[in-house]
This record gives sequence, structure tokens and C-alpha cells, in this order.
Amino acid sequence: MLLNRAQLLTSPAANTVFTTVLTRGPVNRPEIARITGLSSAAVTKAVKPMIEAGYLEEMPQQERTAEGAGRPAHPLSVRADREFFVGVKVTADELIGVVTDLRAEVRAAHRIPLSGRGVEQVVGGIAELVRQVAGEYAAHTHHIGVSVSGDVDRPGGVVRYSPFLGWRDVPLVRLVADVTGATVTVENDVKALTIAEQWFGEGVGADSFALATVGVGIGCALVVNGRLVPGGYGVAGEIGHIPVAAGDGPDCHCGGRGCVEAIASEEAIVARAREAAGDPALDMAGAIDRAHGGDAAVRAVFAEAGQAIGLGLAAMVNLVGPERVVVSGEGLAAYDLFEEQIRAAFTRQAFGAAARCPLVVRPLPWEEWARGAAAVSIQSLFAA
Amino acid sequence: MLLNRAQLLTSPAANTVFTTVLTRGPVNRPEIARITGLSSAAVTKAVKPMIEAGYLEEMPQQERTAEGAGRPAHPLSVRADREFFVGVKVTADELIGVVTDLRAEVRAAHRIPLSGRGVEQVVGGIAELVRQVAGEYAAHTHHIGVSVSGDVDRPGGVVRYSPFLGWRDVPLVRLVADVTGATVTVENDVKALTIAEQWFGEGVGADSFALATVGVGIGCALVVNGRLVPGGYGVAGEIGHIPVAAGDGPDCHCGGRGCVEAIASEEAIVARAREAAGDPALDMAGAIDRAHGGDAAVRAVFAEAGQAIGLGLAAMVNLVGPERVVVSGEGLAAYDLFEEQIRAAFTRQAFGAAARCPLVVRPLPWEEWARGAAAVSIQSLFAA
Ligand SMILES: [Zn+2]
Ligand SMILES: [Zn+2]
Repeated sequence: MLLNRAQLLTSPAANTVFTTVLTRGPVNRPEIARITGLSSAAVTKAVKPMIEAGYLEEMPQQERTAEGAGRPAHPLSVRADREFFVGVKVTADELIGVVTDLRAEVRAAHRIPLSGRGVEQVVGGIAELVRQVAGEYAAHTHHIGVSVSGDVDRPGGVVRYSPFLGWRDVPLVRLVADVTGATVTVENDVKALTIAEQWFGEGVGADSFALATVGVGIGCALVVNGRLVPGGYGVAGEIGHIPVAAGDGPDCHCGGRGCVEAIASEEAIVARAREAAGDPALDMAGAIDRAHGGDAAVRAVFAEAGQAIGLGLAAMVNLVGPERVVVSGEGLAAYDLFEEQIRAAFTRQAFGAAARCPLVVRPLPWEEWARGAAAVSIQSLFAA
Repeated sequence: MLLNRAQLLTSPAANTVFTTVLTRGPVNRPEIARITGLSSAAVTKAVKPMIEAGYLEEMPQQERTAEGAGRPAHPLSVRADREFFVGVKVTADELIGVVTDLRAEVRAAHRIPLSGRGVEQVVGGIAELVRQVAGEYAAHTHHIGVSVSGDVDRPGGVVRYSPFLGWRDVPLVRLVADVTGATVTVENDVKALTIAEQWFGEGVGADSFALATVGVGIGCALVVNGRLVPGGYGVAGEIGHIPVAAGDGPDCHCGGRGCVEAIASEEAIVARAREAAGDPALDMAGAIDRAHGGDAAVRAVFAEAGQAIGLGLAAMVNLVGPERVVVSGEGLAAYDLFEEQIRAAFTRQAFGAAARCPLVVRPLPWEEWARGAAAVSIQSLFAA
């Protein structure tokens, strides 16, 4: 029997309890009560339908609790292979898909090229990718998570605005559900990656952390007080549009001036490198080559980009105070060219004790982004 | 009988339930359960000791609930005069005190000058102020909240660093408790003001909001996901140290460059106005006079300050996405000189829908800051 969301959403405590078992398990009921602050009765009530539906299982008993022999404390664990999830990351020219289990462990991965960026082409591509990647897991895969960069209305299931696809108000959840028959969730790609970190990565146990991505854009998602920051008007984590050089910096496509993104996005770096090198045909790979070859003017472009990123990170840390920051993204190919400047600018500008916040630099292949989409799909099973 | 904190802290739900009655009351138990997501049993359990201790009271019954005649739904209300609270704001040259009731309504206010900034002088002054302001409420006043600008360790009861007092690691809670016999709480002044807004002001019902203060420093406190942002390393809301002019801006006392505070704090404005006017003896009042008198160079100093503040607010809103922002502080005396630039820079730099976030400008007299300290004291009754 496959449970739908409504059946698992028996109480507001369900999400908390499931997350606790997922991230801290195996863990017994009294421990769950202690960690979550819920009453024993509330824990027992939340756990029951999850065991019945096979999402949680009781492990062999390890020892008796202090409360006495009458109440054995079987540790609870997530049944990882109870169900599988497809995560799909949409990029400008290909779709990357993974199958994960309930613990977000990747079991299979596949990529297919996109023939175009139209809605029909992308939706058709997703359906094809799901068929190919699901393979042996198909019978137990009923949930798909899709992640897209841009402005995504997750509750509404709509991609409100995706600049690189040229989409506005595309009801992606309904369209993908129609062609796959699955339960579909869509989320902004950086937020999806952050949810994966929060549930299964650097964010486990942290009350606050940030994930910043460097590449085509400069993005960031924040977890504060244990939850993703949604933004009162749907805007949050826009580290790329912090004005670090408002006086003498370049104009930004957002209408502002001196934004981090106007100095450090891939497009900005390429434009500035072309000028520095006097070569209007230079691309990013060429710019990296020139910099590695010792071209001082092009190296300075990367250094300025690194400084802008470091200042943006410092501004974010000064404001929000995350326990740690993961820095990732495609732009990391050039990371050796600006890491020193990122760290120097961050350290100089971080305020007092905020400078102790570690910057964890980590390359994330596209499959990790797809895994983020799968994590959102897992979360949607339990979160209201 | 006076309850101590441990007696009211009967469950983690107590804070939530009390806050709900305080901010939404009168409200009956089923409504509390609906608003908080707690079970009816948990609400009943949390409410019971608060009624017994006289902090909540049942109002005359308005109507029967839908659940039937057997369960009358008496609305619950906070008994405002159950207990009174003293709030003290410490400034560089005077202490401002208020007495509030349990709803943070100010019942009395008083100020006394500070004879000096030494620990003994300030602690002695607080004891004297409490005696004078408590007056007729003394018998029912057992909690004192103190707010100080700087780095405050609220759980530890210590002022870790206060630049304007020249204090480091002063155990203010213990010292004030020793001379007053009261239960004492100390908090950073901007955070205290924000807690008052969250419980009793602009923040009621908002999942996220920000309060920024303009004056000697440029400060900010943030509420995100319903709770004050503490900062993983004790640093958060440092809008004053966002580098908005990292390339061509002035050095900042924090070690960074082009910080909002290096351009827009009172000290920065005075220093820049002295240079602009060629008058090394100019003070803030004089600078405001000159600007009001039409001195273009001094007006430009205020305009630049306004622009830096607006950019800092936009950076904060782009990152955190509050539902609204309250802008306040002593600096508002000059507000007409830079409001236009604040709003213009904010609007230009806010990203997309974030520009819809309202900036509510409000002068807050020192008594409001003292009320913030009282609100912290009220909160400490119920929060762990
Ligand atoms: Zn921008
Ligand atoms: Zn600074």
C-alpha cells in the first residue's frame, strides 16, 4: 500500500519526528521526545502510522530504559528501501536525474540532453529521464522532485520565473504529474540543495547555516532557527545583489549597482576578462586558461570577483550569523583563482566573532543538485 | 504567591501558549490549539498553572463552542496587573526606567543622570532608579530587565563588550540582583526593542521582521521564522558592517572598509561634515543646522549617509526577506535630511518583489527602549 501525504500528515509533529529519526536514528521514543520537546504521547502517536505504513521500523532491542522493564525502548530507524524518489535538476542544456532511497542515498543516476527550453520539450524530457533512471526501482517510485533555478512557488507547484529557460508562470507540477502519474514537487534549485544539506548533510544538527553557489549567478539559501528562510515576499538569500561597490562598481541587470553578481557571475567575469585581454571572443574556459597562464590583467578580474564574493559572504554572515557556510557551484572550476581573495575579504569584513564561521568549500556535481530535488520530494511526504 | 521561572516552565509549550494569549487574547483553548498547532491536552496542561498563578484569567463565557454544551469555551486573557516589571535602558549619560504591566503597558517612567560609566556607578544608579520608578508598584515588582548596547550574553547574564561604557565581561545580572533582590535579565538594547515589537508591536503575527536603528551606531535585529536571530557566534543583524562601498569607501573601526556605519553613524557624519564645512569644532546639532540652512556640502554628507543606510537595508531585505522593517533610533532627528536618499537607494537596490517590503519610520523615545528591556523581563518569565 502506498500512503499519500494526507495519510502521513496525521499531526504537525510528524515532520519533526520523521526528521529526527532520519537524521539521528536509530533512536528510541524517549530520546525522540527529549530531542523534539514533544510529549511521549505525541511521539507515540506520530510514530504509529509511520511504522504501519513501513516508513519506520523498530530495531532489535538494545537495552532496557531507566523507566523500567515494562516499557522496552526499541530504537526506531528509517526503512530506507520502503520507497524510492526521483530527483531531476533542470539545466540549460541537459536534465540530470537520480533515484534515491528514503535516506537520500543515490541508487542510480542518468543524464539526458535537452533538445530545447520550451515547456513541452522540458516536460517530455523529464518524463523520458524518469523512465530511464527509475529502472528497477520503478515499481516503488511514486514521487518526483524537480529543481529549477529562478523564482519557484513550491506550494503552488509553479515556476513563476526562470530567466535561463525564459519561463513565466509554468505549472510544472501539474504538467509533470500528467505525463508521469507521480506525485511531483518543484523547488528552486539552491533551496533544494539546502534542504538536502539540512536533512542529510552539513546542516544536520545546525540551527542555522547557509549554502552559497557561485557560477552563472551567485545564489544563497539560508536556514535560520531550524527552517529555510522563505522571504516575506518570496525573496531571500539574494547574496548576488548585495551592493558591495555601490559607488564605483558596475551596473547590475537587477537595476542596482555594484552587486556581487555584477562583478563575480560567470557572465561578468567573462565580460571583464574580454576587456582585460582585449579579446572579444574570449569565453570562460579561455579566461581561466589565460589566468592560469599568468595573464596579470585577467588574474585581476578573478581576484576582484573573489573579493566581491568574500564581501558578500561577510555581509551575509554579519547579518544572519550562520553556524557554517557551504560554498559551492559550477564556478568552482576557477576556485583556485579566487579562493585566496574570497577568504581574505571575508576575514577582513566579518564582524568580530562572526569571522569564526567556517567556509566549507565543496564542488557539487550536477547529480548532487538532482539529489537535492529528491530530498525535497522526500520532505514533501512529511511536511505540511 | 510569586512564581519563579522554574514553576511556570512546566512545558516547552508554555511560552507559545502565553505569547498567543498575550498577542491574540482574549482567546479560548480550542483557538489556542488551532493557532499553535498544539494538542488540546497540551494547551490545557500549559494553561492550568498560569491560571493558578494568576497570570491568565478566564473571562465570562461568550458563547458555547461547536463541540457541544459539555465543554464551555471561556476565553482566556492575560491579567495585566498580576505583576509589574521594571525596564532600564543604559545610555552614556543617563538611565531611563519604566514600570510596565504584564502586557508591557507603561505605568510609570523616570530618568536619572549617570555620574560616570564605571560598573559600580551604573549598578548603583540602576538600584536608585528602580527604587524611584517602582513607587506604588514596588510590592508587585520582582523582575528587572536591563538593556545595553554592545555584545550581551543574555543566558549568561553578562555584558561581554560595551564600547560606549568601556566594559568587558561584566556580570551585570548578578550585580544588579545583589543590590535589588530582583530577578534580573540583561539583553542587547536593539534586541530588546525587537522583542517588544515582536510581542507587542509591528511584529505581532509576522513570521519575519527587522528593526533597524540609526544613530551612534547603525544596528539591526531580525526575527526570522518567528524567532529572534541569535547568530551562530553571537553576531547577527550587523547591518552597520555591510560593506556598501568596499572599493572607494572609508575605513571602518571594525577593520573592514566602506561599511554603512563608516559613512552613516553619527560620528562618521560629524567627521565628514567638519571636513565639508571646514569647521573642526562642528557637532551633530551644528551639522544639522548647517544642512537645514542650505549648506550644500553638508547636505551632501547627509545624503551620502542616507544612501548608505538605504543600501544596507536593501542588502538585508534581499538576504532575509522580512515582511516589514521598522527604522528608528536617535539619528531620526536628522531624518528629513536623508529620508529621500534612504528610500531611493532602498528601492533601487531591493531585488524584485523585495522592494514591496514596507519601511516604517518611527522615532522611539528612550522610554520605548526601556520598555523593550521590560518586555525582555516579561518574556524571561516564560521562555526557557
Ligand atoms: Zn544586482
Ligand atoms: Zn565596519
